[in-house]
Amino acid sequence: MKLYGKNPVIERLKSNPKSIKRVMIDENHVDLTYIRKKCHQHGIGVQAVPHSKIQRLAQNLNTQGILADIDDFAYVQFDDLLQNAFEKRRTPVFLDNLNDPQNLGGIIRTCGALGVFDIVLPTTESVSVTESVLRVACGGENYLSVARVANIGNAIEKAKKMGFWILGTVVEDAVSLTEQKLQFPLGLVMGSEEKGVRDIILKKLDAKVMVPMKNQRMSLNVAHATSILCYEIVRQKKLRRLTPRSLPWISLLKQGF
Amino acid sequence: MKLYGKNPVIERLKSNPKSIKRVMIDENHVDLTYIRKKCHQHGIGVQAVPHSKIQRLAQNLNTQGILADIDDFAYVQFDDLLQNAFEKRRTPVFLDNLNDPQNLGGIIRTCGALGVFDIVLPTTESVSVTESVLRVACGGENYLSVARVANIGNAIEKAKKMGFWILGTVVEDAVSLTEQKLQFPLGLVMGSEEKGVRDIILKKLDAKVMVPMKNQRMSLNVAHATSILCYEIVRQKKLRRLTPRSLPWISLLKQGF
Repeated sequence: MKLYGKNPVIERLKSNPKSIKRVMIDENHVDLTYIRKKCHQHGIGVQAVPHSKIQRLAQNLNTQGILADIDDFAYVQFDDLLQNAFEKRRTPVFLDNLNDPQNLGGIIRTCGALGVFDIVLPTTESVSVTESVLRVACGGENYLSVARVANIGNAIEKAKKMGFWILGTVVEDAVSLTEQKLQFPLGLVMGSEEKGVRDIILKKLDAKVMVPMKNQRMSLNVAHATSILCYEIVRQKKLRRLTPRSLPWISLLKQGF
Repeated sequence: MKLYGKNPVIERLKSNPKSIKRVMIDENHVDLTYIRKKCHQHGIGVQAVPHSKIQRLAQNLNTQGILADIDDFAYVQFDDLLQNAFEKRRTPVFLDNLNDPQNLGGIIRTCGALGVFDIVLPTTESVSVTESVLRVACGGENYLSVARVANIGNAIEKAKKMGFWILGTVVEDAVSLTEQKLQFPLGLVMGSEEKGVRDIILKKLDAKVMVPMKNQRMSLNVAHATSILCYEIVRQKKLRRLTPRSLPWISLLKQGF
């Protein structure tokens, strides 16, 4: 598997150098000293190659002069992901039939940066963690686990049995996200780009929310919607931690009212 | 200028049909009846053309079998945008040297859907509203104004003089977005993909915030960060409307504490 672009490679060098087999640098690039130094520290071979070779290997995408050979992406078992999420109060994000690598990459980047999310993908009719996904994820994959499951509905049921409260996003007939009090531990379900969350999955949700939009005819991009949802989850989690139920006025002070 | 893809063309037909000169449909596509009907209603010519022609005109990007010839994008004057934003309590979003069309498109889509934002771009060293941007924006451009200014710093100064409170996003040494009480009318500043908000602009901000991330080494994509910021702006605006300052306990009830 190949990883390309400055940020993705630098982030991988910092957080998971063992997964890098070798690094190729465009021989015309002189500003990659930091990467050379890091590779040397970790005993990773660095090869200076002609620009044309890098471009060919990266199928002409923008590599910023750098490309790394890395281990195949390591998915985890769903049961392990769920157990860990439960213990560490992380939120599994169930992506119901996503098909655009750009969207999955964007979601992994935000979820990795926010740092308290993991990803669950179906094995069929869904994008998986490919090279294009990693390029967009910019290193986010180093800060979360991804599991693949045969049946996303069954996976959600399993999470519910364990005590997760399941939240899903829809485009109509639901409470505004700004007014929904979230429950923890929480699992989040996001639907596909074209069809949203499927009916069979909708039935399993403990709560449905909408991002409050003035123009209901429009729709949000699923990766942007996921970023908004994940931010709101982090926000309410912080608020909850700061606000014991017996002292609700603290939340007012914290919010400056 | 060309617009391609089912959603962008449908949205344009609904909200701004006059800007469409003619529509070309892939002759093999039979499921575009709705679009044909709408075009007929508005007196817009529809032409069935071979798949290969559509692909050539769209430079092989995914057109979903449809392409429209439209008027060039109509920017507005910055002064008009500002006046309108002030009167209607909209938030101008100043994008300081963005260079990726995908990001500008994503921002226009979210801002258009949320419905209370406008966009300000610098004329130089910045992406403008191109065909690629419109493809990603999915019709968001119909629900906001975009102005271009020679100097983004001067534009921000002008907004401040008018009474706008200017919020900017940085990656360190700032208050968490979850703890910042926003002031209205509000202007938002977002920096470029590589460099963030420039120093010269930082000095003009009334407040700096960070999206709370557990992994500080990571960074968010600028379009995703903008979506999160815009959501928080909408959330606090709603909360403020619901909560007269004299009755802060209402906010607790509304939030379910």
